Amino acid sequence: MSGHVALIGAGPGDPELLTLRAVRLLDTADVVVHDALVGAGVLALAPVTAELIDVGKRPGRPTPQELINALLVHLARQGKRVVRLKGGDPFVFGRGGEEALALDLADVSYEVIPGVTSAFAAPAAAGIPVTHRNVSGAVTIVTGHRHAGAQPLDWKSLAKVSGTIVVLMGVANRSMIADELVAGGLASDTPVAAVRSGTTERQDVVRCRLDQLAGTRVESPAVIVIGTVAALDLATWSPTVALVAADGSMTS
Amino acid sequence: MSGHVALIGAGPGDPELLTLRAVRLLDTADVVVHDALVGAGVLALAPVTAELIDVGKRPGRPTPQELINALLVHLARQGKRVVRLKGGDPFVFGRGGEEALALDLADVSYEVIPGVTSAFAAPAAAGIPVTHRNVSGAVTIVTGHRHAGAQPLDWKSLAKVSGTIVVLMGVANRSMIADELVAGGLASDTPVAAVRSGTTERQDVVRCRLDQLAGTRVESPAVIVIGTVAALDLATWSPTVALVAADGSMTS
Repeated sequence: MSGHVALIGAGPGDPELLTLRAVRLLDTADVVVHDALVGAGVLALAPVTAELIDVGKRPGRPTPQELINALLVHLARQGKRVVRLKGGDPFVFGRGGEEALALDLADVSYEVIPGVTSAFAAPAAAGIPVTHRNVSGAVTIVTGHRHAGAQPLDWKSLAKVSGTIVVLMGVANRSMIADELVAGGLASDTPVAAVRSGTTERQDVVRCRLDQLAGTRVESPAVIVIGTVAALDLATWSPTVALVAADGSMTS
Repeated sequence: MSGHVALIGAGPGDPELLTLRAVRLLDTADVVVHDALVGAGVLALAPVTAELIDVGKRPGRPTPQELINALLVHLARQGKRVVRLKGGDPFVFGRGGEEALALDLADVSYEVIPGVTSAFAAPAAAGIPVTHRNVSGAVTIVTGHRHAGAQPLDWKSLAKVSGTIVVLMGVANRSMIADELVAGGLASDTPVAAVRSGTTERQDVVRCRLDQLAGTRVESPAVIVIGTVAALDLATWSPTVALVAADGSMTS
């Protein structure tokens, strides 16, 4: 029997935001290859017999993408049911396209399961709708971390598109990002919210103006929301785990 | 006992792409208030005793947003557990922010459950990653349907941001959208994919160049992807329902 790889979006952190499909595939996994951002609550849904392999990219301990691609092919060729678990969505800066291509080229059976993207769920958990009628008619997701050789992003043009900007992996470069957006015409008092560990019990939200972003303490990783909607705070997120009793009844 | 409203993202169509939280809340619903885009497979997860109210906006039969807001408040004040089910994600052109505000102002208990957005899942189901290293370092979601009084979108600036553009509700205005993007400098041979009923058994994908979009037959509603990634076709989506047997075993 040949193996199979499922490239799965694990969502923003709260295990309750996994999809049914993700849970079913996790439940039958022989091996789970996961990122650093995938939390313990999600990994706990894998069978106790499943092997867990952490390939998370961390400062000072990077795992080259080519090695991850080769690992997935290797495990599948051993006949394993492999779950490749990524924070958020595999195709939103999750390098899922590269892994899919590698599997395709190696003629390995695979599927892609989209997930709830942190780019929208983290703001939502902070009470921020990324679009809002008459306020924001577009939302752009960008990565603040540019790879060598990557096509440079035109931040100044982005500043001119009236809408919300969500920056992933942008904490370290937030000073440059703010400067470029202001240089492009975005008002310096544009509201900003930085959401760390959104949807989890450790959720932390910092709010400021765009011209204060460089001087505001924000710990990585965080989802940075830039735009009028970032001033909203529609509701406080309650971690969902505590709200559902074991018998499925609701306690809230 | 006072009622409660859950504003829930039902995802792109496939019931397997609902979140665990969405399924649990659906399971305890007294009333389900749903959009036209929410499919029968998703609604089937509500209890047989639950009342289903279709408030879908359709050509010639619009349900004013204010009426939906008032309905949610009314049902909650009757002590009902209300599930407001929206296609995709409530905060990505789902008017979830307006409903949350109305519930907030009426002092009704509510929560927002993000969902898998169709803007990314429909392209994924067609084998298209919305971001891809060295190809697309940003993705913008816009609505092609502008409301009276809405801030006009600067399509020409959007054309200059190097990245993927995903247009929701844009089939009727696709000629204008293509013209504006080309006028803004986007190459007329930029790949385009229009994905209808993505992730479901009725999925249909049409591909063309940007300058052919106006003359290409595309039925509404469809998710339109514009950018280099739209030429990719990494894998063919298999509707997941058939792949999972009743005992949870995998048949693929």
